[in-house]
Amino acid sequence: MDTAILKSKLHDYRSLALKGIQHFVPQSEPKKYLYDLVLDYPNRGGKGFRPGLCIAACKAFGGTEAQVINSATSLELFHNAFLVHDDIEDGSEFRRNKPTMHEYNTIGIAINVGDAMNVLSIKPLMMNMEILGPELTWQVFSEIEHMVRQSVEGQALELGWRKENLCKLTDDDYLRMILKKTCWYTTIHPLRIGAIIGSQGAINADRFNRFGYFMGTAFQIQDDILNLVGDETAYGKEIGGDILEGKRTLMLIHLLNHSTAKERKRLVHYLKDCRSEESLDTAQWVMDRMEHYESIDYARKVSKNMAGAALKEFHSSFGDIPDSEDKKLIESIIMYMIERDY
Amino acid sequence: MDTAILKSKLHDYRSLALKGIQHFVPQSEPKKYLYDLVLDYPNRGGKGFRPGLCIAACKAFGGTEAQVINSATSLELFHNAFLVHDDIEDGSEFRRNKPTMHEYNTIGIAINVGDAMNVLSIKPLMMNMEILGPELTWQVFSEIEHMVRQSVEGQALELGWRKENLCKLTDDDYLRMILKKTCWYTTIHPLRIGAIIGSQGAINADRFNRFGYFMGTAFQIQDDILNLVGDETAYGKEIGGDILEGKRTLMLIHLLNHSTAKERKRLVHYLKDCRSEESLDTAQWVMDRMEHYESIDYARKVSKNMAGAALKEFHSSFGDIPDSEDKKLIESIIMYMIERDY
Repeated sequence: MDTAILKSKLHDYRSLALKGIQHFVPQSEPKKYLYDLVLDYPNRGGKGFRPGLCIAACKAFGGTEAQVINSATSLELFHNAFLVHDDIEDGSEFRRNKPTMHEYNTIGIAINVGDAMNVLSIKPLMMNMEILGPELTWQVFSEIEHMVRQSVEGQALELGWRKENLCKLTDDDYLRMILKKTCWYTTIHPLRIGAIIGSQGAINADRFNRFGYFMGTAFQIQDDILNLVGDETAYGKEIGGDILEGKRTLMLIHLLNHSTAKERKRLVHYLKDCRSEESLDTAQWVMDRMEHYESIDYARKVSKNMAGAALKEFHSSFGDIPDSEDKKLIESIIMYMIERDY
Repeated sequence: MDTAILKSKLHDYRSLALKGIQHFVPQSEPKKYLYDLVLDYPNRGGKGFRPGLCIAACKAFGGTEAQVINSATSLELFHNAFLVHDDIEDGSEFRRNKPTMHEYNTIGIAINVGDAMNVLSIKPLMMNMEILGPELTWQVFSEIEHMVRQSVEGQALELGWRKENLCKLTDDDYLRMILKKTCWYTTIHPLRIGAIIGSQGAINADRFNRFGYFMGTAFQIQDDILNLVGDETAYGKEIGGDILEGKRTLMLIHLLNHSTAKERKRLVHYLKDCRSEESLDTAQWVMDRMEHYESIDYARKVSKNMAGAALKEFHSSFGDIPDSEDKKLIESIIMYMIERDY
């Protein structure tokens, strides 16, 4: 599928989810410190992978937009709730070219807004009852419960690593962490939920687990790469922010495992206190060393391999259903995830 | 009912809910920065009003502990999740005689633990399906959705007041705020959910709204009073913490509305920056002025009136059901809420 068409379809599906969010956010008080803020992140835009994959999977499996829109809405709202809390947890300053919510408001208010977004995500799932009936509604609920639990587990892993300044990490540790933190809620569950609804509960959704894992991993690694080498305006966050935050990316783990003893010592010391003013010079040095050891090239290679595995796996997951625009969209998203520049 | 018996019954019901929580928290990794921490606040103890009211209401309306335990568990876990986030939002340092979670861990980890507790609260509600069947399960779900939404709205009101250093507040503003922030989740919904389950969905749960409002208000005002004059060990938080946090209590609003222009100016200035080191002396002055204007006595009077109204309302809410130990327990909790010293 042509990239322009792909982007336009993702945009359309994301617009549906955004309309859904706007519909489910109460028009009542308190607005200034709650419901206006609930809409802030969703209104900033986004790539729309989650509602895109969910809606496309539903249609590819024979369902309609009307059947899946509540669930896609819920996914997009959960995603944005994660972002609000994640930005506090990571100490991030920018999100989609604007200050993060806790930066232009207080941390307390941002925590509460994230909590509100989480509870508001439940409402569209409850509205599924009218459209999907009790059994499918219930099944989607269970999917979401698993999804959110995996995400907080992944987040706990990553936050624990930083808290303990863990530097003995392997690629496997990283992949396990992003399976939990990213894949379940970005790819696996959106696909599962879409296909469950589209097939009226007829399929075994586990068929998407491997596919979603490969796809989600390719996505997250590319996201981490863009954080280091992307165009700031397109990417919407401060470039190199992950280094300033001491985030355990595949590149950082590669560097830790390839640097000399002396370099490693400096790196470990830097990671211990990477948020201090004095660390800024060292951050540039970290970038230089990543270049020297070709850590970013290495991550690109892994991301590409994961996308390759996803392409292969696509046929196991979708091979038995008729070709369609939506099926093609899902296949095209695989390569787009690692070729995108934002 | 004798206070010792009341305390012992509340303790028993809380123990049931705690066992429920321990049952629903996964025994798997990640433990250190997630599931161990999820159990921390629940394990610190608590008065057990929420599971107590819920279980007692269920039994008073003809139900059993087995029918209501999942919902009581969920309520107690939601409550503890609120506390973890609330402590960050308020900048509180102590909770039940120990440092708050974000104090002995990082803010990021504490936010994520609160998120985990919220999602774990969903699981027992899903397990209701087996015991209560789809209709009651669904009804309890709707109750919880409303409850959490009211709580974040109440929290937003209060956080907004502090952010804007709002000092033009009336008793009505305060009561509206704690209806949302406290009453729904502390008294109204626990009673509603218990009675819905106990009566197998036969009653109109709105009958508890006024009762729960009076009871919850009496409770919250007494809680705010104990924060100022309580015994630190019994109360478990730093005494006067609310003044240091600039919390808009009934006493503070009373003081703002009764002090001289000059005092008011000093007070408003203090509230703007109450967390700074230099403000500590002024905090003592605020306490002195509250004493001078009898703000605490005033709050005691309001709390007592609310308890009186609750006692009267008790008969509308529970008059038509047979007498029982559990019915007596609920009635006795009313006065206990304002007579307790912790």
